Amino acid sequence: MEKELIEKLKKGIETIVPENGLEEKIALAEKENRPLIIKFGMDPTAPDLHLGHAVGLKKLREFQETGAQIVLLVGDFTAAIGDPTGRNTTRPPLTEEEIKVNAQTYLDQMGKVIDLSKNVKIVRNSDWLNKMNFGDVLKLLGKATLAQMLQRDDFAKRFAANIPISLHELVYPMMQGYDSVALNSDIEFGGRDQLFNCLVGKTLQESIMGKPVGQTVVSMPLLRGLDGEMKMSKSKNNYIGLTEPANDMFGKTMSIPDELLPEWIELTTNFDAETKANLIADLKNGAVNPMEIKKKVAKNIVTQYHDATAADEAEAFFYRQVQQKGFDDKSFEQVSIAGLPNEISLLDLCAHVNSKESKSALRRLIESGAVAIDGEKQTDAYMKITPTTGLKIKIGKRGFFELAD
Amino acid sequence: MEKELIEKLKKGIETIVPENGLEEKIALAEKENRPLIIKFGMDPTAPDLHLGHAVGLKKLREFQETGAQIVLLVGDFTAAIGDPTGRNTTRPPLTEEEIKVNAQTYLDQMGKVIDLSKNVKIVRNSDWLNKMNFGDVLKLLGKATLAQMLQRDDFAKRFAANIPISLHELVYPMMQGYDSVALNSDIEFGGRDQLFNCLVGKTLQESIMGKPVGQTVVSMPLLRGLDGEMKMSKSKNNYIGLTEPANDMFGKTMSIPDELLPEWIELTTNFDAETKANLIADLKNGAVNPMEIKKKVAKNIVTQYHDATAADEAEAFFYRQVQQKGFDDKSFEQVSIAGLPNEISLLDLCAHVNSKESKSALRRLIESGAVAIDGEKQTDAYMKITPTTGLKIKIGKRGFFELAD
Repeated sequence: MEKELIEKLKKGIETIVPENGLEEKIALAEKENRPLIIKFGMDPTAPDLHLGHAVGLKKLREFQETGAQIVLLVGDFTAAIGDPTGRNTTRPPLTEEEIKVNAQTYLDQMGKVIDLSKNVKIVRNSDWLNKMNFGDVLKLLGKATLAQMLQRDDFAKRFAANIPISLHELVYPMMQGYDSVALNSDIEFGGRDQLFNCLVGKTLQESIMGKPVGQTVVSMPLLRGLDGEMKMSKSKNNYIGLTEPANDMFGKTMSIPDELLPEWIELTTNFDAETKANLIADLKNGAVNPMEIKKKVAKNIVTQYHDATAADEAEAFFYRQVQQKGFDDKSFEQVSIAGLPNEISLLDLCAHVNSKESKSALRRLIESGAVAIDGEKQTDAYMKITPTTGLKIKIGKRGFFELAD
Repeated sequence: MEKELIEKLKKGIETIVPENGLEEKIALAEKENRPLIIKFGMDPTAPDLHLGHAVGLKKLREFQETGAQIVLLVGDFTAAIGDPTGRNTTRPPLTEEEIKVNAQTYLDQMGKVIDLSKNVKIVRNSDWLNKMNFGDVLKLLGKATLAQMLQRDDFAKRFAANIPISLHELVYPMMQGYDSVALNSDIEFGGRDQLFNCLVGKTLQESIMGKPVGQTVVSMPLLRGLDGEMKMSKSKNNYIGLTEPANDMFGKTMSIPDELLPEWIELTTNFDAETKANLIADLKNGAVNPMEIKKKVAKNIVTQYHDATAADEAEAFFYRQVQQKGFDDKSFEQVSIAGLPNEISLLDLCAHVNSKESKSALRRLIESGAVAIDGEKQTDAYMKITPTTGLKIKIGKRGFFELAD
C-alpha cells in the first residue's frame, strides 16, 4: 500500500497500539498475499446506532475500500448469558430470536455507512465460546493475572472504592480477547472504553498463538453528544440515531452548543479535508455566524443518512417551526385526549403527548422554562390542567403538540 | 443420636463452622430418615498418606461407625488439568491412568483407618465439572466476588506482596465449593488450610441450592512433623507414612522432640482417653522418663498400622541399632559398588547408598555431623573416598550401610 494511503487511513485515529502497528500489519498481509483482517465487535444488547458509532464505522469504511476483510463479530455468547449476578437489570439474557433480530437491526443501520456486500463477514462468538469446557476456560484464565485485570480502569476504581466486582466479570475481557485468537485478526477497532479488552486480545494472540506481536488496536475519538458534555450515548439521551427522521436529525444538530462544532465538523460530516479546515477557520476567526455553519453540518448529516432533498426539506421545516416561530397550525402534532382524566398534572400531560422522553427529562424541561401551554411558559411540573381540545403544548425547541378529540 | 455420642464425635475437632452445625445436620439427617453425608476430598496428585492425614481419617472413622455415609471425592478434574500457567512444576497434569493408580494407592492407605466396605462411596468431580460449559462456569463465578476470594489467606498475602495470582487460581475454590453442591453434603472434612474452600462450599449450597444453611465445615488440628516445628508434610520430609515399615515408624517416632509428645499422644495414638490423660500427666510432672513414654507412643503407632508383634520386633531392632549402638553386621544394608568410579565424593557415596534422601538433605546431614565412615564422623561433603567392599557408612540415626561387590 502506498505510504500516502496509509497516512490517509491513519488520519483521525486517536490511538494505535503499538504505534507502528498499522504499517506492520498492512505489510504482513501484503507479504502473505491476503487481505488485512479487521475485527469489529457488535453488541447485540445495544442495537441502536448513533452518530457516535458512525465515527468508527466511517474509518472502517475507509479500510474496506482498500480491500480489507471486515469481520463483524456478534457478541451473542454473553448476550445469551446476561449478567449471572442478576445485579445488572439492564442486561437480562437475550433469547436466540432477540439476538437475531437485534443483529439484523444493527446491520441495517451499519449498512448506511459500510458496504455490506463487499468483503464483510458476520460471525458469532458463540461458535467457539460455546464449545469451550471448564478445562478450556481454566487454561484460558491461566494466561492472565489478577493484577493485569485490575489495571482496567473501571475495575481499579471499583476495587479501590470497595464496590463489589463479581468473579465472572474478570472473565469477560478474556473472552473478548479470545475472540481475537479465534478470528486471527490483524486489527481490532474499539471504542476508547474498549481499549483494555482489545489489548487483552493482542496479548492472547501472543501467548496462545505464539505471534511475535498480536493484533493492532485502533480507537477513534469519542463524539460528545447534544448536551456538549458527555459522550454520545443512548442512555444519556443525547444522541442522534442513524435511522432518525430527517427533521429530527436536522433539529437536534441545530441544538448543539457552538463549542461542539469543530469536533462535529471533523467527526460527523463527510466534507473533504479542505472544506472541513475552512469551516473550522471561519468559526475561529468569527467570519461567519456559527448558526450558518451549524446549518451546513446539519444538512450534511441529513444528506448522508437520508438524501439532499430530505436535507432541504428538513431545513425548511426547521425554519418554519423554530427559527421563525411561525406557529403554523398544520405543524402541531395532534394528540388525542381520549382516556385522559378531567384533571392532570402538567408533567403527566407532557408525558402523554411526548412519550419518547422520560418523565425525569420532561420534569427538567418544565423546570428549566422550556415548556409553554397556549404560549405561556409554565415551570410547575405538578400544576393541574384540564385537558381540552385545541390546547397547545410546546416542549423544548421542537415539540409542538395540540390536543384533539 | 444421643447427646453423649455427639459430644464424643465433637471431641478433638478444632473448628466447626457454624458452631452448632454438627448437631443441626445430625438432627436434619435423622428427621429426613437418611444417613449423614460426609464429604472427604482426596487429592490424587498427593497420594502418600502420613500420620498427619490419619488425624482426620480417625475422626472420619468415628462418624462412619455411627452410620454416616462417607463420600470420598477424588479431585481428578483439576489433577487432569494441572496448572495452566505452567509455573507450578510440581503440579503437572496427570493422565487418566496415573489418577487411577494414585486414587487406588490413596485408598489402600486409607483402608488402614477407614473401613472401606462400610457406607463408603467413591466419586470423581470430573463427573460434573467436565459437563460444565463456559456459560455454566460464568454463572458459577457470578456467585462470588473478588473481595470474597481475596479473604483467603494466601491470596490476600500474595496480593499484598504483589506476587502474581493467576486468574484461574481464583476459580479453584469455586470448583471445590461446587463439589459440595453436586454431593449435597451435610458435612465437609477439611484440613485447617482448606477451611476457606470448604466454606465456599457452604455458601454455594446456600446460593445455588437455596439451603437456609449450607454444609457444616469440620477441621482437625494439624499434626507437627518429626522436626517439631512444621506441619507434617511430604514436601518437608518430616513425616511418617502410613505404609512405612515398622522399624522406620518406630525409629522416626523415637526421634521426635519431647515437646511434641502431648500432641502426638492426643493425635496419633489410639489409647483410650484415660490412658492419654495419664501419659500426659506423667510427662508434665516428670514422673516418667520421656523416652519411655515415646516408646509407648511408637509401639502404639506401629501396632495400629502393622500389629503388636511387629511393634515388639521394631522396638528390639531400635534398641539393638541405635540406643545400644550394637553394630550388628547383619543389620547393615548391603549396597553394591558395581558401576561406581574409583574415587567419589562423600556426598555422592551417601546418595548412592541411600537414594531415598535428596542430595541437599544428605549434605545437611553430613555437615551437621550425622554421617560416619567406618565409625569416624565426616563433615566434608566433598571429601574424596575410594569405595571398597566392607566400607561401613552410617547416615543419621537409622541408616546403616555396608559396601559390597
